[in-house]
Amino acid sequence: MTARVTSPVIPCGFTFSATHCGLKKSKLDLALIVSESPAIAAAMFTTNQVKAAPVIVSQEHMRSAQSRIRAIIVNSGNANCCTGPEGFLAARATAAHTARELGPFDPKHVLVNSTGVIGAPLRVGKILAALPDLARARRASPGSFEAVARAIMTTDTRPKWAWAKFRARGKEIRILGCAKGSGMISPNMATMFAFLLTDAAIEPRLLSRALRTATEATFNSITVDGDTSTNDTIAVLANAQSGARKIRVGSYYGKFCTALTDVCKSLALSIVEDGEGAQRVIEIEVRGASSDRDAERIARTIANSPLVKTALAGADPNWGRILAAAGRSGVEFQFERADIWLAGILVCRGGREKPFDEGKAHQKMLAKMVPILVDLRSGRGKARMWTCDFTGEYVHINASYRT
Amino acid sequence: MTARVTSPVIPCGFTFSATHCGLKKSKLDLALIVSESPAIAAAMFTTNQVKAAPVIVSQEHMRSAQSRIRAIIVNSGNANCCTGPEGFLAARATAAHTARELGPFDPKHVLVNSTGVIGAPLRVGKILAALPDLARARRASPGSFEAVARAIMTTDTRPKWAWAKFRARGKEIRILGCAKGSGMISPNMATMFAFLLTDAAIEPRLLSRALRTATEATFNSITVDGDTSTNDTIAVLANAQSGARKIRVGSYYGKFCTALTDVCKSLALSIVEDGEGAQRVIEIEVRGASSDRDAERIARTIANSPLVKTALAGADPNWGRILAAAGRSGVEFQFERADIWLAGILVCRGGREKPFDEGKAHQKMLAKMVPILVDLRSGRGKARMWTCDFTGEYVHINASYRT
Repeated sequence: MTARVTSPVIPCGFTFSATHCGLKKSKLDLALIVSESPAIAAAMFTTNQVKAAPVIVSQEHMRSAQSRIRAIIVNSGNANCCTGPEGFLAARATAAHTARELGPFDPKHVLVNSTGVIGAPLRVGKILAALPDLARARRASPGSFEAVARAIMTTDTRPKWAWAKFRARGKEIRILGCAKGSGMISPNMATMFAFLLTDAAIEPRLLSRALRTATEATFNSITVDGDTSTNDTIAVLANAQSGARKIRVGSYYGKFCTALTDVCKSLALSIVEDGEGAQRVIEIEVRGASSDRDAERIARTIANSPLVKTALAGADPNWGRILAAAGRSGVEFQFERADIWLAGILVCRGGREKPFDEGKAHQKMLAKMVPILVDLRSGRGKARMWTCDFTGEYVHINASYRT
Repeated sequence: MTARVTSPVIPCGFTFSATHCGLKKSKLDLALIVSESPAIAAAMFTTNQVKAAPVIVSQEHMRSAQSRIRAIIVNSGNANCCTGPEGFLAARATAAHTARELGPFDPKHVLVNSTGVIGAPLRVGKILAALPDLARARRASPGSFEAVARAIMTTDTRPKWAWAKFRARGKEIRILGCAKGSGMISPNMATMFAFLLTDAAIEPRLLSRALRTATEATFNSITVDGDTSTNDTIAVLANAQSGARKIRVGSYYGKFCTALTDVCKSLALSIVEDGEGAQRVIEIEVRGASSDRDAERIARTIANSPLVKTALAGADPNWGRILAAAGRSGVEFQFERADIWLAGILVCRGGREKPFDEGKAHQKMLAKMVPILVDLRSGRGKARMWTCDFTGEYVHINASYRT
């Protein structure tokens, strides 16, 4: 099963709306996702010590509402991070007003999310003023979901969504997700924003486990610039509206996990594809390490090396930088055993150059997806990460983000 | 005492020569540094697991020659790294031929160094053919030392040297150093190349200690791109030719350390100033951390953050990225206590924005040296690092280094 990125298929019982409330100059900047019946939620948040107010408020809500979530409200244009006590008041007011317009129900059933510049005060009045109309405008249509995917964008150049479905005893279960992220991407136990919606019925603990499993191999395995955000949030809502029986271990849990992972992987790769200034995606596979953990450290160091990423921008088969990055990862290994394949070409065998056609390698490295395989030939540890190349455009985007 | 960068003052008993042997198209690419009498040496090498053949050969020589070194031979244009057994043969042949032309003496008294592209076979025949003339051409003149500083350059745009001197009981002791480095700079217990020469008399163990002390606060406190090289080497030769009495703890050791550190700091800062594509130097000071180690981790994470460095390229007072980088450093701290000064302006107080004049901040950030001070107000730990901004030019230089 592979996740699809064609027109979104909406799981039963979810509605959406988006608007321009005035935090950005003219683009959509406020989005609302609602489960029309109470849903079970699982969520993961940034591991950055500096956490935005909405992250802390959403964490509180997840605890006090015992994972029962009705709505997700998201603004772009301001991260509401490093904004002092006023930032917390703003996040709480946003949740309270959302709950009042939709219910009323307890604000703890609302997740609040913000993304954009750090440190600038959030003009929360603009959000509160827009909420009544936003709540009224919600629809279950593909178009309204696409508008949500657009409204959560910052430096993203395109909206990102993916969906999957499977049948369980005659009933169709759907999983739909959207994500944002383009810079400050180095998720660690969480991601930028990814919101996943399913009409499956599932216990909170099992949903949490499925989300962790899906995240590890997808959102936690991508990096654009090694900078972990202060606002990373991934949340999944499951509202049981498909009519299918409850998912349990041994009863469609495997299928559910696979579908969820497929949707996450599609979203994660679309974040890398849309990495700031990116021309191509680099898939880094490390094999033959002493442990999976060692392989992961090496893969991550290669994926974040400015020298590797700039060489990829120039489609330059500079494999020495790949091995040098592995060498500084903190992992001990014998580089004299290492083989490296670049864009499918064996360029290094046993830690030294295997003569190859540089012109041909350059041509193959101009593709949209370039695989790098490093085989340390010392053990069974393996890992896979995705990153993008590092271009002048990345610098251009980030040299004047704020001013 | 501050190191000087005016025309080099040559310590007694050292000679120099440089030539174009053909590894580069037309520029100087081979340099020789000779102590005319046996000198005591101390050296530090890269901590990268992937070590170039000349690094391993020089490490062997330091051990077997019991720190007695006569000559340093350096080529640029090829790193002789990941070059298999032939790479070792090439490094050993270079040392042997150098010792024969100068003495003859045992090749173990020669340090061999290479810098340039990784993985390409070293055309050692070109070096060996040039050695006889190179050995004959050596002089003690400032011009010949400047030629050495030029011959070790790769992407450097200018040669780097510094010198200091002090008097000990009527005798003048001189310390002269040159360095190279512009990219792949994140020295870790070593640096790119730095060669330091002094006519002081000093025991090997004390010289080693002085070098470690000097390196910690200078070469180990700079970063251009977080990429630790495979060939980093710093070596100091002390030949006792000044005529001054032996330096001992309590007898001019402090003065010697200060002078050596001053020369190292001047060289380290000139590497950052000449960082690939750099427009300005960023001095990052972290104070008020729980420990010096915590402060150093935070300073290093900020110094290597692509988002911080690109904001600096645009002179954009985006202080949120500085705090976000600190937050992902792995160090626990309360960001609600943090103050940040950017270019001397208090922009963040207690983890939130202190309103400031963005236009004025932008103007001050256009300077050649921009200080960032992060005060966590939680302890006495402190650290200082230097880095440069991250420009489109860095990407341009590195996108096509090899091809």
